[in-house]
Amino acid sequence: MPKKPLILVTNDDGITAPGIRALISVMNEIGNVVVIAPDSPQSAMGHAITINSTLHCHKIKIDDGPQIEYSCSGTPADCVKLGINEILDSKPDLCVAGVNHGSNSSINVIYSGTMSAAIEATIEGVPAIGFSLLDYRWKANFNHIKNYIKKITLKALKRGIPDKIALNVNFPNLVESKIKGIKICRQAKAYWIEKFDKRKNPQGKEYYWLTGEFINEDSNNDTDEHALNSGYISIVPVKHDLTDYDSMKKIKDWHL
Amino acid sequence: MPKKPLILVTNDDGITAPGIRALISVMNEIGNVVVIAPDSPQSAMGHAITINSTLHCHKIKIDDGPQIEYSCSGTPADCVKLGINEILDSKPDLCVAGVNHGSNSSINVIYSGTMSAAIEATIEGVPAIGFSLLDYRWKANFNHIKNYIKKITLKALKRGIPDKIALNVNFPNLVESKIKGIKICRQAKAYWIEKFDKRKNPQGKEYYWLTGEFINEDSNNDTDEHALNSGYISIVPVKHDLTDYDSMKKIKDWHL
Repeated sequence: MPKKPLILVTNDDGITAPGIRALISVMNEIGNVVVIAPDSPQSAMGHAITINSTLHCHKIKIDDGPQIEYSCSGTPADCVKLGINEILDSKPDLCVAGVNHGSNSSINVIYSGTMSAAIEATIEGVPAIGFSLLDYRWKANFNHIKNYIKKITLKALKRGIPDKIALNVNFPNLVESKIKGIKICRQAKAYWIEKFDKRKNPQGKEYYWLTGEFINEDSNNDTDEHALNSGYISIVPVKHDLTDYDSMKKIKDWHL
Repeated sequence: MPKKPLILVTNDDGITAPGIRALISVMNEIGNVVVIAPDSPQSAMGHAITINSTLHCHKIKIDDGPQIEYSCSGTPADCVKLGINEILDSKPDLCVAGVNHGSNSSINVIYSGTMSAAIEATIEGVPAIGFSLLDYRWKANFNHIKNYIKKITLKALKRGIPDKIALNVNFPNLVESKIKGIKICRQAKAYWIEKFDKRKNPQGKEYYWLTGEFINEDSNNDTDEHALNSGYISIVPVKHDLTDYDSMKKIKDWHL
C-alpha cells in the first residue's frame, strides 16, 4: 500500500469554523492530517506575518477524528511557516486551506488570508490548494461540495500541481444539483468600490467602518467570475511572482 | 503653468518614520501632497485590510512643509482605500509608498505593507511606486537617494506607468558614489528559511519568535537581487493579477 500523503490544513476563519471542519473530514479520507490554524478569525489578513510580536501555538482537539491539531495565535501565513519549519517532522505533500466562508475569486485573492496561506506554502515548496464557498454565513452548508474537494485534491496529488503554483478553488453558492462542473479560469479584472460608514463613538470621536461594492469590469467568459455566475466551480492557478514581464520592456524605454 | 499633480503618500513604518519624511520632502517639490499613513509600524502586514474592526483617521502635522497629513489606525492598504475613497476630493495622479526601512526586493514584495499599499492603489486605478532602502535602521540615511526618487517619479508622471502596474523600487545600501545606476528587473526567485526561536514566558508557557535566513536560489543576472548586489537600483513592475497563465493549459489537461 503506498504511503499516505502528509497534509497540512489551515484557514483564515479560525480553527473552529465549520469550513475547516468540513475540509479536515475530507482530508482524513486521503492522508495523514495535521491542522495548524488561527485561534481567532483572520479574514482579510492578506499575506501578513508576525515579526514584531510573539507567536503562541498549542495542541488542541476540536472534534473527533485521526487528525492532529494545533491552535496558533498568528496569521494564516504564520500557521504555514510554523507548520512547515517547526511543528511538522517532515515536509508536507500538500497544504490545503479553507473551506473559506465567502468568495476568494478575482481580486479577493489579494486580501484573502486563506489564499495567502496557500501561496505561502508554494513559496516554501509545498503544493497547495485554497477552497472557498460563496456563502459568508457561519452555518453555510459544506456537505455537498465535499465530493468535489476530494476529487480535486486526489487529482492534484496524482498529476502534481505545477511548481510554485497554488490552486484557487471557488464554489458557487448553489445546491449540488445546480452545479454544472469545473472550469479552469483566469482571475477576473475586478475591484471593490469602498464606501466608509462614518460614525461617532460615545465620546463623540469619529471613526469609520469599511464597506464596499464589488465591481466586475471583465465581461469575458474565461474568468472565475464568469464561471461562478454560470454555475461552475472555478479553479485559477495562482503564482507569487508578481513581475509584469510585458511592462519591463516599456519601462526600459524610459532610459532612466 | 500645468496643474501640479496630486500625490498620495503612505508607508508601513508609520507616519513618523524618517523614510516617509524623506519621501514627503521630495514629493513636495513635484506636486500637491496628501499623506495618509499608519499611526504605528505596520511592517510585514502584507495586503491586510481592516474589515472586522473600526478605523480612526485624523489630521496631524508632523513637521514643516506644505503637505496635508492624516494619521490612520489601519494598515497601509487601509490608508490607500481611505485616502482615495473618503479623504481626497479627487483621485490622486500618483500614489507613492515608503521610503521603506529595509528591502522589499524579490519575495519580500509579498509580505510588504509598503508594496501592498502601492498595489492597492493600482487596483483602484491609481499609478503607484513603492520605494525601499536596503537599510533597516531607523537612522538610515535617505538624503543621497532623494535625487533618484525625484528622477524616477518625474519620469513615471511624464511617461505614464502601464495600467494597473506598480513600480517596486529598491535602493542598495551604498553611499551615493558607489551607486552605478538603475536596472529594470524581474523579481528574483527567493524565499526565507524560517527558524523559530522557542522561549518560555515568566509563567513557563512556550512561545515563538520568527527569525529567518534569506535564500536566493536565482543566479540569473536579470533579477532585482542581482542588480542590488551589483550596486544598481532595481525597478520591478508588479501586478495584482496572480493568474499563472502557463499552468491553465496543464490543469485543463487533468480533465476534472
